[in-house]
Amino acid sequence: MVPSTEGIDVLVSEVGPRDGLQNTKQFMPTAFKQRWISAAAAAGLREIEVCSFVPPSVIPQMADAHEVVRHALGISGLHVAVLAPNFKGVQRAVESGAHKITLPISVSRRHSLANVRRTTEEAIEDARRACAFRDSLPEGQRPKVEAGLSTVFGCTIEGRVSEEQVVRDAIACVEAGCDEVGLADTTGMANPAQVRRMFRKVRSAIGDRLGGAHLHNTRGFGLANVVAALEEGVRTFDSSLAGLGGCPFAPGATGNIVTEDLVFMLEEMGLRTGIDLDRLIAIRQVLAEGIPGEPLYGHVPLLDASARTSMVAA
Amino acid sequence: MVPSTEGIDVLVSEVGPRDGLQNTKQFMPTAFKQRWISAAAAAGLREIEVCSFVPPSVIPQMADAHEVVRHALGISGLHVAVLAPNFKGVQRAVESGAHKITLPISVSRRHSLANVRRTTEEAIEDARRACAFRDSLPEGQRPKVEAGLSTVFGCTIEGRVSEEQVVRDAIACVEAGCDEVGLADTTGMANPAQVRRMFRKVRSAIGDRLGGAHLHNTRGFGLANVVAALEEGVRTFDSSLAGLGGCPFAPGATGNIVTEDLVFMLEEMGLRTGIDLDRLIAIRQVLAEGIPGEPLYGHVPLLDASARTSMVAA
Repeated sequence: MVPSTEGIDVLVSEVGPRDGLQNTKQFMPTAFKQRWISAAAAAGLREIEVCSFVPPSVIPQMADAHEVVRHALGISGLHVAVLAPNFKGVQRAVESGAHKITLPISVSRRHSLANVRRTTEEAIEDARRACAFRDSLPEGQRPKVEAGLSTVFGCTIEGRVSEEQVVRDAIACVEAGCDEVGLADTTGMANPAQVRRMFRKVRSAIGDRLGGAHLHNTRGFGLANVVAALEEGVRTFDSSLAGLGGCPFAPGATGNIVTEDLVFMLEEMGLRTGIDLDRLIAIRQVLAEGIPGEPLYGHVPLLDASARTSMVAA
Repeated sequence: MVPSTEGIDVLVSEVGPRDGLQNTKQFMPTAFKQRWISAAAAAGLREIEVCSFVPPSVIPQMADAHEVVRHALGISGLHVAVLAPNFKGVQRAVESGAHKITLPISVSRRHSLANVRRTTEEAIEDARRACAFRDSLPEGQRPKVEAGLSTVFGCTIEGRVSEEQVVRDAIACVEAGCDEVGLADTTGMANPAQVRRMFRKVRSAIGDRLGGAHLHNTRGFGLANVVAALEEGVRTFDSSLAGLGGCPFAPGATGNIVTEDLVFMLEEMGLRTGIDLDRLIAIRQVLAEGIPGEPLYGHVPLLDASARTSMVAA
């Protein structure tokens, strides 16, 4: 028998308001971000990465981070995630009251220096400080801390990334106190065989501290990599509505995997996301108005509603 | 250990000149078809479905079928495949000297009537006649006969297709004498869980008579379905250069899976296709000139050559 995934719950974690907007040229007005987040939660998304606590001078799009988090915290049942690139960002994130803080940690040493201007070891040290800070907070106010290991599957600067180094960094993050370690295909270079191998290796090193998969669709392999990760028991996937954000080095290629396509595929496979596809697709209108002209990706939203009829439920 | 596919040979069977062109509005001049086929073979494609033996009144694009086959037969080492929708087409295909003849057989009874104006049982009967005709030929002149089971994963007319019916039809095709039975996602409705289940069921019924996977990318699940089929031991995949042909009911959604993306993914996974990706991508120029304005799909061809650098070979 094929190992069945029928009826298993999957968490689709929407990262568009953070990872998507981070790459758009236009500033999306705060009110549109809030509409987007509200509509996404109403469509059934249970976790949304709503912003990044970076200096507005670096990413002006994130200048309204506090207001965006405040709004999201008002939505009942929503798990509010944020990104913090360093300890200062963690402090602001904790002040904001976010439920989950992700610290990006590049396995590629050269990418780490280029992207956040410090070494991977310094980034892990920040994660350690973040976890100590979390532990010093009163119980009930402690956010979850996730290490988002990036450039795990290849780096545009360094090329191939050592799988043993990924495992070592994952262990170091757990030792630093991180609740979970996610694996990110930052550059969109992953292939399905590599995804299976890498998730299996890291799981055997850190067990249930292994978090979700953050996959990009640069080469068009995004959903193929999801299938590979599912085979390895991964049950949390980051994705972005309309694949928002594009890709810095490949015109026409999407950045993050497209939430609409991901949700439909998972549901068709018999997994349960708890998400209403029609309501999800309707949110594209908020993006079209909030950042007009920005390309919106995805196959499923282009289908006639009749062609989106599930072959599972029929 | 993850079951390794490292170093395993995969046959990528190019169907663009048949399935792709069948859906384009413009007639591609014969000389362009011949250039395309020659270039594809030179890039390392070992099997190409070069045309369909349908009446030119039905598909004018295929009026030059004999000339196209003649040209393809002149290419050393190339396995020349053709499609024949009925016994009359089989007779013409045999005359042409093609190495392999695929007969499409719809599992969806209503699709069969709508598409080829006869029942599934009549189509299987034609396959039986085709196989008897093949057996009557002198040894060395007998083409391989494949049943291409279509609408296996869902039908736009009938909706859900019975998996038990697929198995029964596959067995009937083998009993009719077909050398192999391929499974086609004609409508692009397949999901990876279903692909695994269906290939496993049919293999357990007909063993090594199970042929390849013919997958479409209508919903964007094409390569995800390839991964699922690989897990079930499928080693032959149909695809179309530039995803040629589009999709009749979903603007912007490709028809067949894109050969360029498929080849790069398989190679990155450590499988061997024998195909030179750069030479493959260069053929898009022939399509751009032969059928100008036709949309060319694919993620990998849009990447900078540097971004196509293999993370495997590095």
